[in-house]
Amino acid sequence: MAVAKKHEEVMELAKRRGFIWPSFEIYGGVAGFYDFGPLGALLKNKIIQKWREFYVVREGFFEIDSPSIVPEEVLRASGHVDHFVDAMVECQKCRSAFRVVDLVLEQTGKGIEGMSKEEMDRFVKEHKVRCSDCGGELGKIFDFNAMFRTAIGPGSQRVGYLRPETAQGIFIDFKRLQRYARGKLPFGVVQIGKGYRNEISPRQGIIRLREFTMAEAEVFFDPEDPHHPRFSEMAGEQLRLWRACDQIKDREQLTETTVEQAVERKVVCNELMAYYLALTKRFLIDLGIPNGVIRFREQTPGQRAHYSSETWDAEVSTERFGWVEVAGLAYRTDYDLSRHAQFSKEDMTIFSADKKRKVLCHVVEPSYGIDRPFYCLLEHSYVSEKERKYLRLKKELAPIEVGVFPLLNRAGMPEKAREVLEGLKSRGFMVEYDDAGSIGRRYARADEVGTPYCVTIDHRTLEEDTLTVRDRDATSQVRVKIEELPRVLRSLLCDEIPFSEAGEPVKKRSES
Amino acid sequence: MAVAKKHEEVMELAKRRGFIWPSFEIYGGVAGFYDFGPLGALLKNKIIQKWREFYVVREGFFEIDSPSIVPEEVLRASGHVDHFVDAMVECQKCRSAFRVVDLVLEQTGKGIEGMSKEEMDRFVKEHKVRCSDCGGELGKIFDFNAMFRTAIGPGSQRVGYLRPETAQGIFIDFKRLQRYARGKLPFGVVQIGKGYRNEISPRQGIIRLREFTMAEAEVFFDPEDPHHPRFSEMAGEQLRLWRACDQIKDREQLTETTVEQAVERKVVCNELMAYYLALTKRFLIDLGIPNGVIRFREQTPGQRAHYSSETWDAEVSTERFGWVEVAGLAYRTDYDLSRHAQFSKEDMTIFSADKKRKVLCHVVEPSYGIDRPFYCLLEHSYVSEKERKYLRLKKELAPIEVGVFPLLNRAGMPEKAREVLEGLKSRGFMVEYDDAGSIGRRYARADEVGTPYCVTIDHRTLEEDTLTVRDRDATSQVRVKIEELPRVLRSLLCDEIPFSEAGEPVKKRSES
Repeated sequence: MAVAKKHEEVMELAKRRGFIWPSFEIYGGVAGFYDFGPLGALLKNKIIQKWREFYVVREGFFEIDSPSIVPEEVLRASGHVDHFVDAMVECQKCRSAFRVVDLVLEQTGKGIEGMSKEEMDRFVKEHKVRCSDCGGELGKIFDFNAMFRTAIGPGSQRVGYLRPETAQGIFIDFKRLQRYARGKLPFGVVQIGKGYRNEISPRQGIIRLREFTMAEAEVFFDPEDPHHPRFSEMAGEQLRLWRACDQIKDREQLTETTVEQAVERKVVCNELMAYYLALTKRFLIDLGIPNGVIRFREQTPGQRAHYSSETWDAEVSTERFGWVEVAGLAYRTDYDLSRHAQFSKEDMTIFSADKKRKVLCHVVEPSYGIDRPFYCLLEHSYVSEKERKYLRLKKELAPIEVGVFPLLNRAGMPEKAREVLEGLKSRGFMVEYDDAGSIGRRYARADEVGTPYCVTIDHRTLEEDTLTVRDRDATSQVRVKIEELPRVLRSLLCDEIPFSEAGEPVKKRSES
Repeated sequence: MAVAKKHEEVMELAKRRGFIWPSFEIYGGVAGFYDFGPLGALLKNKIIQKWREFYVVREGFFEIDSPSIVPEEVLRASGHVDHFVDAMVECQKCRSAFRVVDLVLEQTGKGIEGMSKEEMDRFVKEHKVRCSDCGGELGKIFDFNAMFRTAIGPGSQRVGYLRPETAQGIFIDFKRLQRYARGKLPFGVVQIGKGYRNEISPRQGIIRLREFTMAEAEVFFDPEDPHHPRFSEMAGEQLRLWRACDQIKDREQLTETTVEQAVERKVVCNELMAYYLALTKRFLIDLGIPNGVIRFREQTPGQRAHYSSETWDAEVSTERFGWVEVAGLAYRTDYDLSRHAQFSKEDMTIFSADKKRKVLCHVVEPSYGIDRPFYCLLEHSYVSEKERKYLRLKKELAPIEVGVFPLLNRAGMPEKAREVLEGLKSRGFMVEYDDAGSIGRRYARADEVGTPYCVTIDHRTLEEDTLTVRDRDATSQVRVKIEELPRVLRSLLCDEIPFSEAGEPVKKRSES
C-alpha cells in the first residue's frame, strides 16, 4: 500500500469511528491538540493499564500522582526555566513563527539539533532558509521557553507552569518516597499523567502534541551499585541499537547485542539502563508492535536534555512519520536530586545501612509517551485484505471485547439479544450492541475497530438457547450455549482455549 | 472520639503511610495542591475504576478524553469567562486576599452565596467583617475569574485557560458523539480528568483544591422524553433530600422519598435526574460510605451555576468538615449546546427518526469529584478499637490486596516468601513484602492501610508447602496449600467464599 494512503486510511478510520478527533473542531481547531473519542479512550486506557502491569504490579514501582501546575521555584531548580527552550524564528514579513530545527529540516533535509543559536543563524543564512508560509525573510533566532505559564492565586505574584514532565513531582517527593521504600535501594517510582510543551507551530498531528499523556519511571540507585535484582532474567534479551558514535560518523549501522553484552562492552552505561531498555522492548512487543520495527537510538551529546548524561530513544518505524520516538531512557545521574537539595536546602542524601555511608542517589529514567505508541499501534494493526479492512489488535487491547447482534430486528431476537448484552455487562465485559444493517455489515463494522468476538442471536437461540460466536481473525463461527457464554468468552479473551474448541463449529455461509 | 482528634489521626496516618502529601513540601508548599502518594494513588485509581464500572461498563456511557487547556472562545461560549468568578476582597492594610463568602462565613457564621456584589459590600460593612490576618479594613468587593489563564503558542495572541470542568470537551464534540451513538436518545458521555479552579486563598486542605480530579457524565436527551430505559429498576430506591424551599425557610427538614415519588410529586425535575440521584447514592454506598451519612441538597437559585436550572449536591457528612459536597447533579437544559451553536455557527440539533422532527438535546449532568470522596472514604473507614487502628476499606478498594511476610529472616523463609510474592505478582495481585520487625507489628502495619489479607511463610511452609492467610477484620488465620493460594485469595477478594472456609483454621495465638 502506498505510504500516504495507509496513513490516510488509518486516520480516516480513526476519526470516523471515534478513536481520535481534532480538538475544538467546531471552533476551527487548535494545532497540537487531539481528543480521544470513545474507542480511543478505551484503547488509551488499556495501554496505560498494560504499562501499570509492567511497572507497578510486576516491577513493584510505587505510583504517585502530583499536580500538573508547578510553582516556578521547582522548575528553576530542575533547570527547565533556563533550558526547556526551543530556538525560534519569526518571518519579518508575515510574522509566522517557526521552530528553527523543524523549518531547517523541512527546507534542507538537515538535522541541526544541538547547534548554538549563532551556528543556527549562520546555517539559516548560508542555506537561504525562508518563511515556509510566505517566502519572506526571517528575523534573528531567539530562545522561546516551551512551558505554558500561568499565575497561581489572584494577582500575578506567584508564577506557575504546566509541568513539562511528570518526573519533577517525583524528585521533590524523594524524601517521603525513600521513607516509604524503607531505605531500600534500588527502588522505582512512576507517574502517569499529562505533560505539556507549548510548541511554537506543531504540524505533525498526534506525533507533536502540546498536551500529551506520559508514563514516567524514576529508578533511584546507589551509583556504586547500579544492579537490578532480576538482571539475570533479562541478560539474554536481544537489543537493536543505533549508537551515537555511529550517527556522528553518518553510519546507519545498527549494533545487535544482548543486554548482558551491551553492559559488558560499555555500549550502555549500566545494568539498570540495559534492563529497562529490554523491558521497554518487551512492553512495545506486548502491545502488539512488531519486534522488527523497534530500535533504540542513542542521542548525540548535542541532542540530550540538560539533565542527561546518556539517553536512548526507543523508536518505532511508521510509514508516515518514519522513525518515531515513543520512549526515552535517560541516565539523569544525581542532577535532579542535587539541584533540589541546593535550591530547597533539604538534605537529599540517604543513609545506607548496608554500606554505612551517605548516598546521593542516581537516577535512570524510562519515560514513555502514550499518544505516540497509540498511533503506532493503530498503524501497525491496520490490515487491508481485498475487501476486508480491520484492526488486528491483540484481544486484550481491543476497545470493545464483544459485539452483540440480533440476526433480525423482530421475532423476539432483539429482546433476547438485550438480555445477553446485560448479562455480559453485569460480568464486566466491554460490549457493544449493533442492530443496524445486514449481519455482514455489522461484522465488518466490528472488525474495523478490532472487536475480537461477535455474538449473534438467531432463530436457534430462541429454540434451544444457543448462539453463535464469531472470531475476528478467522472469520469463522462456533455455536455456544447461552449459559456457557461468559465462561467461553473469558477463556477466549485470555487465550486459554483455541477458538476451534470453544463450541460446535458452524458451517460457513456468506456474511451478507 | 473527639471530632478534631479523628481528623488529625486520619491525616497523620494518610501522610505517614503515603496516601496524601502536601505538594511542593520541600519548597514550603502551595495551598490548594495535594500529592497522592503510593497508597493514595492506588486507592484513587480504584475509586475511578469503580466509577467506570458504573458509568462506562454498566450504563454504557462513552468515555472521551479531551485537553485540559481550552482556548478562550470555547469558554466564552460556555459562559465561564463571564460567570466563573468569585467575589473577592483585599485587606487595605496587609493586601491579603479573601473569597468574600468564606471570610463572611468564618466571621459571622452566615452563608451569603447568591448575593450581588452590592449586597455583599453592605453585608460586610454592617457586620464589621475585617481582614482575618491582620484585622485591617477591607477594600471594595470585585469579581475574580477563577480560571487559570495561559497563552497557547508563542506571544500572547491566543489566550487559553485550564478547564474549570471536563464537560465542555464533551459539549463541543456533540456532533461527532451523536453520530457515534447513531442518533439514539438518550445517550451518555463521560470524561475523567483534571479540573482547575484558581482559588483565591484555599484553607480547607484536600476539600478545597486548585487542581482536582473530576468524573463527569453528560446525559443527552429529548426534552419531551426525559425517560431512562431502566427507570423501573431504580423506581423504588429511597432518597434523602433537603429541598431548596425548606432551606430558604431555614427548615432543616429532610424529605424521604422513593425515586418514583420524587418524580411524580415534581420534587425532582425528571426521571433522568431522579435515576442518577439514585445511582449516585448506590455508587457512594458501593465505595463504602455508609447510607446514613449521605443526603442530597438542592441548591437554592442564588447558589446555582449559570448553566443550571436545578442542581442537587450529593453530600457526605464528615466529622471535620461537616457536610461535604462530593457530586453535583445539574439540569443544564439546552444551555451549553445552544450557546455553542450560537458562538460556533454549527447546527447542534439532531434529527429524530422516531419523532420526525429536529431536536436540540437537553442535558442532565452527574458530576463527581474524586478527591473529596477519597477523603470521606478514609475518614469513614478509619476504625480505632482499643490498641488497634485500621482502615476497614472494602476489599476491592484496598490499595494493597495481600501482604507477604516471612516469619523469620532466616532458615530459608525469605527466599520462599519471595517465591510466593513473585507468583502472586505474575498473576496480577497487588502485593507488598514486609520483613521488618515482629510479625504482630507487620500485621498492624498492614491493617493500618486496610490490606485485607496477609500471608505468612513459617516453619511448616518449608516442611509441607502450606502457609497461613490472615483476615484483617477477623484477625484470625487459616492454613492453605501454596499451590492453592492464588485461587483462595481470588475467591476471598471476590467474596465468593467466607474466610472460615478458605482453609484449615489456625489456633489463635498472640500476635506479637
